[in-house]
Amino acid sequence: MTEEQILETPPEDEGYALDGRTVAAIRLAIAAGDRQRLAELLDPLHPADIADLLEQLDGGHRRELLLLGAGLFQGEILSELDEGLREEVIAFLPPDVLADAVRDLESDDVVDLLEDLDTPQQEAILDALEEPDRIAVEQALAYPEFSAGRLMQREVVRAPEHWTVGEAIDYLRANKKTLPDQFYHVIVIDPGVRPVGYVTLGKLLSSKRKEKLTALFEDSFRTIPVSQPESEVAYAFNQYHLISAPVVDDAGRLVGVITIDDAMNVLDEEHEEDILRLAGVGEGSLSDRVSETTRQRFPWLFVNLLTAIIASLVIAQFEEAIAQVVALAVLMPIIASMGGNAGTQSLTVAVRALATKDLTASNVWRVVRRELAVGLINGAIFAIVMGVVGLVWFSSPQLGLVIAAAMIINLGVAALAGILIPVTLDKLGVDPALASGTFVTTVTDVVGFFAFLGLASAVLL
Amino acid sequence: MTEEQILETPPEDEGYALDGRTVAAIRLAIAAGDRQRLAELLDPLHPADIADLLEQLDGGHRRELLLLGAGLFQGEILSELDEGLREEVIAFLPPDVLADAVRDLESDDVVDLLEDLDTPQQEAILDALEEPDRIAVEQALAYPEFSAGRLMQREVVRAPEHWTVGEAIDYLRANKKTLPDQFYHVIVIDPGVRPVGYVTLGKLLSSKRKEKLTALFEDSFRTIPVSQPESEVAYAFNQYHLISAPVVDDAGRLVGVITIDDAMNVLDEEHEEDILRLAGVGEGSLSDRVSETTRQRFPWLFVNLLTAIIASLVIAQFEEAIAQVVALAVLMPIIASMGGNAGTQSLTVAVRALATKDLTASNVWRVVRRELAVGLINGAIFAIVMGVVGLVWFSSPQLGLVIAAAMIINLGVAALAGILIPVTLDKLGVDPALASGTFVTTVTDVVGFFAFLGLASAVLL
Repeated sequence: MTEEQILETPPEDEGYALDGRTVAAIRLAIAAGDRQRLAELLDPLHPADIADLLEQLDGGHRRELLLLGAGLFQGEILSELDEGLREEVIAFLPPDVLADAVRDLESDDVVDLLEDLDTPQQEAILDALEEPDRIAVEQALAYPEFSAGRLMQREVVRAPEHWTVGEAIDYLRANKKTLPDQFYHVIVIDPGVRPVGYVTLGKLLSSKRKEKLTALFEDSFRTIPVSQPESEVAYAFNQYHLISAPVVDDAGRLVGVITIDDAMNVLDEEHEEDILRLAGVGEGSLSDRVSETTRQRFPWLFVNLLTAIIASLVIAQFEEAIAQVVALAVLMPIIASMGGNAGTQSLTVAVRALATKDLTASNVWRVVRRELAVGLINGAIFAIVMGVVGLVWFSSPQLGLVIAAAMIINLGVAALAGILIPVTLDKLGVDPALASGTFVTTVTDVVGFFAFLGLASAVLL
Repeated sequence: MTEEQILETPPEDEGYALDGRTVAAIRLAIAAGDRQRLAELLDPLHPADIADLLEQLDGGHRRELLLLGAGLFQGEILSELDEGLREEVIAFLPPDVLADAVRDLESDDVVDLLEDLDTPQQEAILDALEEPDRIAVEQALAYPEFSAGRLMQREVVRAPEHWTVGEAIDYLRANKKTLPDQFYHVIVIDPGVRPVGYVTLGKLLSSKRKEKLTALFEDSFRTIPVSQPESEVAYAFNQYHLISAPVVDDAGRLVGVITIDDAMNVLDEEHEEDILRLAGVGEGSLSDRVSETTRQRFPWLFVNLLTAIIASLVIAQFEEAIAQVVALAVLMPIIASMGGNAGTQSLTVAVRALATKDLTASNVWRVVRRELAVGLINGAIFAIVMGVVGLVWFSSPQLGLVIAAAMIINLGVAALAGILIPVTLDKLGVDPALASGTFVTTVTDVVGFFAFLGLASAVLL
């Protein structure tokens, strides 16, 4: 996008997204097969917007757009596409277009692209790269998935300890062509290639030429082990407000650098994953095929069915009581539902607190006591409300008492389950966002039905 | 933290968080009232870690730590603290410590701090600032809450269009003292103070002194309107991989700059809000008081109670059927639970897609058709499973048929509700994460009970 075009664009409340009018115009151009009009419409769009466009179109229009606009295709569009769609688009692109597109990309973007592809597609892309790029990509792929090694870029701007500002600037001027596209620090290394500090470009620009680099070090300096999981990397960037950080191997030697935009991307993906997992949607996006989405959601629903059947088996123990007092069948879902909701509240707070390291071994029991207190207090309030509802609706003080007692029990249990289940899963090395919800609602359903129907059988029959 | 200390720290798998041993040692030092040991332990910690520590301690220990460590208190700790705790800590700190702490902060951090405080606390902090800082903070507070104007820093490094690289570098050297702590671009302005492009510091450092700044402009350049909501700002940074962006007023004049670390912070907060809202927890953290948390969660549980009562009223219409066939009471929660789960799946995908602008007017009907297809296919599979379970368990082919039909109906309705409810709320300007869950489960409970018990009454009685 050129500056003129941006200045012409009126600021919109909708922010920067692809707007409805543009999408409509592009659809028209595709329908008319108007290659030139399409080029005019696509030209000002950022690759991320073109990726969004491809995601919003249905399969037929998408393929037509790729055919008509093949000459305009850029590598960045592939990087921005949803994983599911990426495979489809790569398979559909003519090999020469794909090769051109991939050669445009930085090596860390190629790595990101390759990770999710099948072996034949991976090889097609590797073959399209020039030798040095291919080697860099293959080296990066040797690091474990989701590690700092995969995330980092290998092009690093580094300087020895004895250099002055002037020497660093002269070096940068002399090596203009091989500098990374974006960099924010010059990393200072000792003779063993171990990073010892870094200097911001701002300091470099504003300091006298004869000043020593070591005198300009930033406090924020931290190194990242190359095998560190990317989620920990993102956490460190967020917690310590890092802009870039050198990556070191086991011997402490500089092997690459991670910048905040990569960390922001990981943070975004981690959040997305947490939200989807908490809701029982493993992965998936709107551009996946129906069969794919059905397959992704099925296992979660199946587990839910099993837990629902367990709850039903509890109810089945009390068939006799229900046959005598049908009001029990009317009221029992309320107890289960309130428990499920209260449990989900505690659970979500716990999952978030685990992710942000606010819930640790040092305060877990205090948190459990706190959640239990909250659960019991809300339980007591709703016990009174439902006791009155039960009494008024069914004119039975005993029924009112039973539902009140069951409410307190279930909200207390919900609070305990909501904290202890995710904490236990986390200790066992299972992502607490993944499985906690099912366990918690199973507990609250079973306890809710059992407490309510059991008490009712004891008191009413 | 100095470099030596970092190099001494062994890389840990746990990442960078405050580790259990440090927390335990700090607790011991607090208990012993050992001010010197405490200083030794706190000294290497980042302000963000000290804030985490304060959040993890209970109220009594926290106050003791603040008393013992008052001399060590830094302003950044306040910025990093949870909102709820911030007020408590500010109220507890001696006025002179608070004043010193606040004077350390950059003006945008002071703004962030002030936003959530009561007027008396705000005034205490404003009074502690020096005149120019106070004016800057007050000007920022004049912009609407959650707008780009609140987020931006007002210190901008700018240059006129006719400057060369050499002139820009000389200017930076001459103004070393007034440069912002962190900056990544020199923003080039026209004579009307309107930004027309920017140059990265890397380009500035590596280019010849006589080169024109206008020849070094970056493609990524975008301006942000000062009144734009901060969530849109974060979206733009994430979508277009921005590192910094100039903020302009209604006339297009440069008024400040937003950097990626601020945007990352907003993105993180937005995600947190989405997760908590989807779970029916408005806000809140583990360091809130029990009474505060109880009060925050109560309304969500109350709304859930109302919807559960509505579902009960549906069941109550079929008391007679349940009295005759108690199996209905045993099986009905399964239908409701499956509908609730499937609805939550669709809903969560929809809420995320709305937030990332992947679900728009241009593709909403395709998405609805897609979700309906997924719901009906999974509904059909589970209909067969439950039909068989119903048949085997209760030896009634009619009951099997009824539960199968109810399953298909409810999973289809769940898919529709899961998409249409958040889309409708979004159109009405309500945050879909906030209220969708309640509406969707109400729909699936009511439809589930009604379809199952209604069909059963028609077929079995």
